[in-house]
Amino acid sequence: MVTASAPGKVYLFGEHAVVYGEPAVPCAIDLRARVTAEERSDDRLVVHARDLKLDGFTVEYGEGSPDVDAEDALVRAAVGYVDESVAQVRDAAGRPGAGLEITVESDVPLGAGLGSSAAVSVAAIEAGTRALGTELDREEVADRAYRVEHAVQDGQASRSDTFCSTMGGAVRVEGDDTRRLDAPDLPFVVGYDGGAGDTGELVAKVRALREDYGFAADTVAAIGDLVREGERALAEGDVEELGRLMNFNHGLLSAVGVSSRSLDGMVWAARGAGAHGAKLTGAGGGGCIVALDPTDATERALSLTPQCERAFRAELDAEGVRVE
Amino acid sequence: MVTASAPGKVYLFGEHAVVYGEPAVPCAIDLRARVTAEERSDDRLVVHARDLKLDGFTVEYGEGSPDVDAEDALVRAAVGYVDESVAQVRDAAGRPGAGLEITVESDVPLGAGLGSSAAVSVAAIEAGTRALGTELDREEVADRAYRVEHAVQDGQASRSDTFCSTMGGAVRVEGDDTRRLDAPDLPFVVGYDGGAGDTGELVAKVRALREDYGFAADTVAAIGDLVREGERALAEGDVEELGRLMNFNHGLLSAVGVSSRSLDGMVWAARGAGAHGAKLTGAGGGGCIVALDPTDATERALSLTPQCERAFRAELDAEGVRVE
Repeated sequence: MVTASAPGKVYLFGEHAVVYGEPAVPCAIDLRARVTAEERSDDRLVVHARDLKLDGFTVEYGEGSPDVDAEDALVRAAVGYVDESVAQVRDAAGRPGAGLEITVESDVPLGAGLGSSAAVSVAAIEAGTRALGTELDREEVADRAYRVEHAVQDGQASRSDTFCSTMGGAVRVEGDDTRRLDAPDLPFVVGYDGGAGDTGELVAKVRALREDYGFAADTVAAIGDLVREGERALAEGDVEELGRLMNFNHGLLSAVGVSSRSLDGMVWAARGAGAHGAKLTGAGGGGCIVALDPTDATERALSLTPQCERAFRAELDAEGVRVE
Repeated sequence: MVTASAPGKVYLFGEHAVVYGEPAVPCAIDLRARVTAEERSDDRLVVHARDLKLDGFTVEYGEGSPDVDAEDALVRAAVGYVDESVAQVRDAAGRPGAGLEITVESDVPLGAGLGSSAAVSVAAIEAGTRALGTELDREEVADRAYRVEHAVQDGQASRSDTFCSTMGGAVRVEGDDTRRLDAPDLPFVVGYDGGAGDTGELVAKVRALREDYGFAADTVAAIGDLVREGERALAEGDVEELGRLMNFNHGLLSAVGVSSRSLDGMVWAARGAGAHGAKLTGAGGGGCIVALDPTDATERALSLTPQCERAFRAELDAEGVRVE
């Protein structure tokens, strides 16, 4: 029995545009998904999920399609990630018929823009391969987790979430080019509206806008240029400049239709409290915003904002995936 | 004694970007500023202002600087427009030393993005020149009103507000190229937060972003391309498409930092009520949003929105400046 964990992340810059080859800068944070894997004596796959900010559920796979004891779309999505991760595990271990008992626990709320699916996939691949007696290097874990997202998200994934969750820290992803970045101490504050966006639908919405309108394609390209500017600010440790760029990035994401009333409400609460900047993180439509504020003011303001269900400070995670 | 009136306007598309030579499409609406002018027997200028959503005030000019009996920045701004308008009137009439008694009344809230300054300037030029026995054609009224805004706003004005207020209807302005557009019946709903933005400051903010960042210049250019798309939708009478483009335009305006918490709150209230689209109108920072909704739902939703002080339906004004 092996337990591995992997961190969630916030996007400092570049979500959505990264799908079209622009660079993005996600940062791993100290919220983790933990996956425990144990080889079974039969060829079955049994998945237990707990604490996914949902009721737990159990899925049994045998011949045919899985029998899930919960109907929620998010649960089915989570099961999809575990299912594809196990396929990667079996392939990596050269054990196509291996049975596994998988337990998933997560501090990362599902579908809220904090990279829950990448964290689960990365931890599942790390734990699953070790349970079957194989050890992968981090590059392969990241790559196989990317293939999981690619399969589940109909080919609309980027390497950013899975690379960030595997490596930890601040990273830069542009197409297949992935690297770690030096980053100063970043005073992240997260506001969570308790909801979730439909990543597939949101990605499709941006794609349609980009195909229909030249100015929408230009807006996506402008996000890429903003990210390049943000890399400079990150290298210089210029937190105020990072905040200004986050504000601009949020506006461009609003333009392509992926913000929401509650996300905007939280963003304005953070700015009103004196945060250097604030933006939605992840696919949008609901979920989380991230702000930069070294003081307690933003966390306090968010906790008093009706649209905010939970506000918390997040630390940059430097570790990435680890065996517990 | 002559009274003239001129309409306020909403921006369907293109505010801010129009300052940099991009096209904009403002639409005159049925809120008016009325200016009464009467020649005096001396060479003095006396200005009475009423109902500017502020207490009335009176200004007397003689030798030296005007003596204003109110201190509010908006009042001083309004006086600036009247002052420059009278300079244009005296010049147009060839009566540099003519004395005038001017009374300004307005339904258009000051500084709220509904073109109050253009409406006052246009009506003042029309009334003032007639009071001095001169009649200008509309093109000259529009041009002289533009020169008023140009002088008061430190050279940062566009022809769009003054041309729209003079001609009425939907118009298109791109640099010095000004024309009227055919427009369908547009179901405008306006939400007003009771506040005002500082146009000069907001224009300067966009200018600084545009100079500092290539992606900000691209964002302004994207607004221009969006306006060209909007012209097509307007010509086709495609109100749903106009709404989608308004939503996108609002996001781009948010990116360049000219939206506000209350403007975003009203925009989301309108969208939540089923409006085809909604955006801030004018310089931003506070003031008004405009939505498109043929039903009563948006007006009702806005009237229940805490950030909205006043919600009302506005009709397209087809007349422009007129003598009362």
